[in-house]
Amino acid sequence: MTKGLLVFQSDFGNSDGAVSAMHGVANSVQNGIPIFEITHQIPQYNIWEASYRLLQAIGYWPSETVFVSIVDPGVGSDRRAVVAKTKNNHYIITPDNGTLTHVKQFDGIVEVREIDESINRLPNSGESHTFHGRDIFAYTGARLASGVIQFEDIGPLFEPTEIIGLPLKNSVILDEVITGNVDIIDRPFGNLWTNISRVQFREIAKQFGDSFEVTISTDGRTIYNNIMTYGRSFADLHIGEPLVYVNSLDNIGIAINQGSFADAYRIGTGTNWEVIIRKAPRITYE
Amino acid sequence: MTKGLLVFQSDFGNSDGAVSAMHGVANSVQNGIPIFEITHQIPQYNIWEASYRLLQAIGYWPSETVFVSIVDPGVGSDRRAVVAKTKNNHYIITPDNGTLTHVKQFDGIVEVREIDESINRLPNSGESHTFHGRDIFAYTGARLASGVIQFEDIGPLFEPTEIIGLPLKNSVILDEVITGNVDIIDRPFGNLWTNISRVQFREIAKQFGDSFEVTISTDGRTIYNNIMTYGRSFADLHIGEPLVYVNSLDNIGIAINQGSFADAYRIGTGTNWEVIIRKAPRITYE
Amino acid sequence: MTKGLLVFQSDFGNSDGAVSAMHGVANSVQNGIPIFEITHQIPQYNIWEASYRLLQAIGYWPSETVFVSIVDPGVGSDRRAVVAKTKNNHYIITPDNGTLTHVKQFDGIVEVREIDESINRLPNSGESHTFHGRDIFAYTGARLASGVIQFEDIGPLFEPTEIIGLPLKNSVILDEVITGNVDIIDRPFGNLWTNISRVQFREIAKQFGDSFEVTISTDGRTIYNNIMTYGRSFADLHIGEPLVYVNSLDNIGIAINQGSFADAYRIGTGTNWEVIIRKAPRITYE
Repeated sequence: MTKGLLVFQSDFGNSDGAVSAMHGVANSVQNGIPIFEITHQIPQYNIWEASYRLLQAIGYWPSETVFVSIVDPGVGSDRRAVVAKTKNNHYIITPDNGTLTHVKQFDGIVEVREIDESINRLPNSGESHTFHGRDIFAYTGARLASGVIQFEDIGPLFEPTEIIGLPLKNSVILDEVITGNVDIIDRPFGNLWTNISRVQFREIAKQFGDSFEVTISTDGRTIYNNIMTYGRSFADLHIGEPLVYVNSLDNIGIAINQGSFADAYRIGTGTNWEVIIRKAPRITYE
Repeated sequence: MTKGLLVFQSDFGNSDGAVSAMHGVANSVQNGIPIFEITHQIPQYNIWEASYRLLQAIGYWPSETVFVSIVDPGVGSDRRAVVAKTKNNHYIITPDNGTLTHVKQFDGIVEVREIDESINRLPNSGESHTFHGRDIFAYTGARLASGVIQFEDIGPLFEPTEIIGLPLKNSVILDEVITGNVDIIDRPFGNLWTNISRVQFREIAKQFGDSFEVTISTDGRTIYNNIMTYGRSFADLHIGEPLVYVNSLDNIGIAINQGSFADAYRIGTGTNWEVIIRKAPRITYE
Repeated sequence: MTKGLLVFQSDFGNSDGAVSAMHGVANSVQNGIPIFEITHQIPQYNIWEASYRLLQAIGYWPSETVFVSIVDPGVGSDRRAVVAKTKNNHYIITPDNGTLTHVKQFDGIVEVREIDESINRLPNSGESHTFHGRDIFAYTGARLASGVIQFEDIGPLFEPTEIIGLPLKNSVILDEVITGNVDIIDRPFGNLWTNISRVQFREIAKQFGDSFEVTISTDGRTIYNNIMTYGRSFADLHIGEPLVYVNSLDNIGIAINQGSFADAYRIGTGTNWEVIIRKAPRITYE
């Protein structure tokens, strides 16, 4: 049987006692509960990144693992606190504020319940309205992971279609030109991770070693335009050379071998950071 | 029965092998011992913050949990190494240098023993005099948490009144004006956490939505003076608006919704960072 | 019997989902596997520091502990992926790129095997060539730690003499003058850790309180030259005073009590940062 694993993520940082208070609450529910983390260094209030990091990690965990993700600028508002059950039988406990965007789109959410806070709240925590991570999410996550409560005990079901989503843009391919955007920076390395999938890229990329013209622009300004190689991995290139490659999420990344592409060209993330990739013209020296 | 949990805190940072050496020592005492952390990012030598973070987390852990806190600028001096037993049956292992200040004041310490290093020291560690975290504190913490030794085996009792304390200032209320100070910054968010309790604040604050005049000064200079709302939580305010609120330790916090108050006004911490809160005059527009 | 502990180290940082993906893979091999870390904040691509941090921590862990260290600028190249067995029965799983330098020199490696990736690779991970930490190292580490496979199942043996090593320079003593170098900075404190051993230093240092002339130079430039005391620990000195001392690895450290020596004088690390220590001339005031 699965031992109920509990995995946390937040924007609390690791320098104060907040994460430890959540861990303590979880251990008070079940002494010695196996706790792990994605990260607590999500940039403050950055729901997009919380959503992305969840997707990056979740697929590698055993089914039944319970994830607690707290990036919650609306704590204390009427945003819902929810538990989502994914197609792969993972549970995600989170404020319903967009954090479920990527998992819903790429993994699939089969059921979602709103947490009934009248029965799922740390006893004697009623005067605090700013730390639901401790008082509601960690407490409920530990009780679910350890089997003290079942998914059915969380609160009422609602339609997964009602889950709050952030806008997701698909990359498109037209006349062998792919247009996508920079989804996130692969820190600390500084590689760009795009929303262009390997499968789509392979429609124009036949083999490693081919050359591609990569253009990055934002708000109408071209930030980068150059030719680079499609590498199997970084080691195929000279140190300092740029490359396109398939990243660990099976999407297309753009990097400088042992350098930081994001820092070199001050690249940002989001749907207004456009990436265009096309096969490079064959250069013939006469 | 309680599984002996071991919770670490230090100013060692997370970038070298020091914390792992302590974890290794603990696992050598008991293989697979359940280890957790408060933080290892206490600012170097900042005993005040170590004391505060302990208080912030300790109350949420099961009784019998053993805490090891090492902020130890006096390592190698004749400062005592001690184990304190709190009123709630938590154990804290630490240099006696002020780290116990907040827990002693707000939780209560019922017994304290000086560690007898002749019997509580990692074997063959005699030539190192700069890493008691590994050689004495982690080793003793793991032995206590795992039941290899009992509290009585630590060393001689001494009077809790002899525990070294840092100066603590109470907030005062006079003619409906509360004077306190900034105890700590709630990083990474930048909220101010004061030493003014919810109970005291409620003497002048009857309901959410009321307005208060907040003045912050240090060394005779006024750093901030403005009117703000008493919010139930951040979400009650517009983004960018300041508020006073009850924080997760049941004290009064001062924040900018989704901004950093501390960075905006360069606020520091300590007894010389004074906070004055009074009911705002009712403003009538004619 | 030993519970198979798994200890990770990398240069991935703690801000994205990469470490969690590795932890998830390990938990998928064995649910609730006891996982610990050295650090994930090795400076990117810094194999020297990975090698040093391994040595700093490994000796304090129980035998049979499995270490997974991933600083891997050559991921995807033909550098070997290996499992080394040390003299003290620890296992280290790592790219063979110099990461084993210090452990080989100071602990000893008795056997080493190249990972046969055809049988030791996360199922269905074949299209990703940039995250062997997840697909090969974490997967193999968890299987070894949990007993799913034995050391013999890793792949073919090769000679420990063939392990890739970084250049290590020994300190030398001549006419009571010791010449060594700065191996690493003890962050976050900023102390210098040299390659001069306590045993060698004791040849010229008879007792605590003696004075020594310390010269630090790089590329022919003298960066620091002054007299300092040999302290048993920091507390023997005034705050702000420099000292030489025996660090927690039984080597000679150079520090400013409660200050940062490395930042004060902008000291770097490596074999071209030379440290010369000699007995200070006795100063007689007439």
